[in-house]
Amino acid sequence: MEASRSTAAMRLSLELARRGTRGANPLVGAVIVDAEGTILATGHHRGAGTPHAEADALNRLGPIDPAAARAATMVVTLEPCNHTGRTGPCSRAIIDAGIGNVIFAVTDGGTDSGGGAATLRAAGVEVSQGLLETEATELNHRWFAARAAQRPFTTLHLAQTLDGRIAAADGTSQWITSPRSLLHAHEVRARVGAIVVGTGTVFADNPRLNARNEHGEPFEHQPRRIVMGLRDIPADAALKADGNWEQVRTRDPHQVLALVASRGIDHVLLEGGASIATAFLAADLVDEIFLYQAPIFLGAGRGSVGELGIATLSAARAFRLDPVDGEAVRILGPDTLTHLEPMPSGTGTL
Amino acid sequence: MEASRSTAAMRLSLELARRGTRGANPLVGAVIVDAEGTILATGHHRGAGTPHAEADALNRLGPIDPAAARAATMVVTLEPCNHTGRTGPCSRAIIDAGIGNVIFAVTDGGTDSGGGAATLRAAGVEVSQGLLETEATELNHRWFAARAAQRPFTTLHLAQTLDGRIAAADGTSQWITSPRSLLHAHEVRARVGAIVVGTGTVFADNPRLNARNEHGEPFEHQPRRIVMGLRDIPADAALKADGNWEQVRTRDPHQVLALVASRGIDHVLLEGGASIATAFLAADLVDEIFLYQAPIFLGAGRGSVGELGIATLSAARAFRLDPVDGEAVRILGPDTLTHLEPMPSGTGTL
Repeated sequence: MEASRSTAAMRLSLELARRGTRGANPLVGAVIVDAEGTILATGHHRGAGTPHAEADALNRLGPIDPAAARAATMVVTLEPCNHTGRTGPCSRAIIDAGIGNVIFAVTDGGTDSGGGAATLRAAGVEVSQGLLETEATELNHRWFAARAAQRPFTTLHLAQTLDGRIAAADGTSQWITSPRSLLHAHEVRARVGAIVVGTGTVFADNPRLNARNEHGEPFEHQPRRIVMGLRDIPADAALKADGNWEQVRTRDPHQVLALVASRGIDHVLLEGGASIATAFLAADLVDEIFLYQAPIFLGAGRGSVGELGIATLSAARAFRLDPVDGEAVRILGPDTLTHLEPMPSGTGTL
Repeated sequence: MEASRSTAAMRLSLELARRGTRGANPLVGAVIVDAEGTILATGHHRGAGTPHAEADALNRLGPIDPAAARAATMVVTLEPCNHTGRTGPCSRAIIDAGIGNVIFAVTDGGTDSGGGAATLRAAGVEVSQGLLETEATELNHRWFAARAAQRPFTTLHLAQTLDGRIAAADGTSQWITSPRSLLHAHEVRARVGAIVVGTGTVFADNPRLNARNEHGEPFEHQPRRIVMGLRDIPADAALKADGNWEQVRTRDPHQVLALVASRGIDHVLLEGGASIATAFLAADLVDEIFLYQAPIFLGAGRGSVGELGIATLSAARAFRLDPVDGEAVRILGPDTLTHLEPMPSGTGTL
């Protein structure tokens, strides 16, 4: 296939990847093209537990004769996995479909999932790698960083006033944001493996920390509830409703993430309060933020984020509107929701 | 005309009014309909110095014979003015056009501009008032409040981090927001009569406080520059570049607005810093806010808003996304811009 056609197909795969949702798995897109570059099928990954992008594209591929399959190319943003998780290995699916060529952008590198290229080559598939590698790496830069550190991907929730406060002077904090914002927050809860809160939040709000729909009914999937901090929490704390919780007696976010990872959980939601947000932001352990802002000012009371050790403006912790989210800024009832990810290192902001 | 047709026409006038821009003048829309309710022309006010809504509609009205004009109705959201400002009185324009009927929603009540209904009736025009008065009053509720207090309409600019800070721990503050945000801020400067800053801002940033386009060139209209505060500012302060400035030696926002009003200025922009924003917010003297947020966290440093005397969450100063702005939340380069107005009194937020 001509280089310009491969590049066009990979650009499309990157666009497809952006339709996914960040979390336990990377954003991946795939396109199957014939020798002339005509698109035969497209696919993308929609989140943990759903088909990988390659499988999604293969599922959408119509009947194809063996010669046509052998002439076709799977153009995918990430090396096809070699690993049986909730879904089977993509390398095997590509081989079984008789696809003769694979072009991928960036190497998987995972201890479990990597090695797909070698499996494909051993089965006689023509494999090339590195096309638009920079773009594909940046697309999932925080997911790659999390995996390199063998820690879960982290999402931070902040719910605050316009002046960045999460409680009034007298400590009142429920509810700063609206029911619409709370519902969105619960929908995020329903797709993570665990939620982390501090002991202070347990004492202040006594949250149940389950994921509920607009009728207040629990979603099918419920995250594990993890309390971070040194204080004993009350024996009758609402989050102890069933056995799916535990306390980590530390203030160190690295230790919390190590515990979460040891439970086989690869996406964790940081819910508060301010000391949790501050600890994870200061340690550069926040991969994604949903910032809910109510259209009010308090002028006093606890801020959403505390001391980060930043002395001067140019050292500010820099985020950006999540470039894969077409609604990175949206209106939720009276509130606004801003979806952010850390600025990739090496790109300036100020 | 049937009541349902009048109401439909007034609803359209309210929709047209929303296309305007808040400021020195209220948002006003007008529709000219025939006896069957068919729309003959529409108009709205686009801001100080441009035609009033009634004049705009009359300008768009095609040739019409005297009998048809006499049978027609001007349906307008505000009582036609009786006053010659930068534009002539609308009551006179309606009489001159031979329009036989006027329906308006809310009385003008201004000492200069009011009395249009009486003028119209004296000329034989059939006038009725009060249709959708509640909606028309709410549309401009802060403009009416400002005029009742005989003070200018106020717009507040806040430029801050996601955690509500306007400077880092070491005091660095230029530039938190992006060139795109600065350009928007300058466009607002170009449509106000005056800008207010505190002496602290003069010492910290030494701003020129003029309104410049994307090439750094001054706009034709330049606002008067007003410094609020007790300290003497430097003799070579940049804002003293020409004679169009003055200092008000007070910390009382009411006194500042009285001075601005005495200069014949009816729209003022509050630019900062935090003590200015705090004083005006605490006194409920902010009619509109443009909140620019850069996607960064500082964790320390000066907040955008200080003590407002609010002890508990339910007493928070409540705003709402400006309902007349179709882009009340928008993306400006890396930043977000949120356009807010105070919640009308009597409507709950929390």
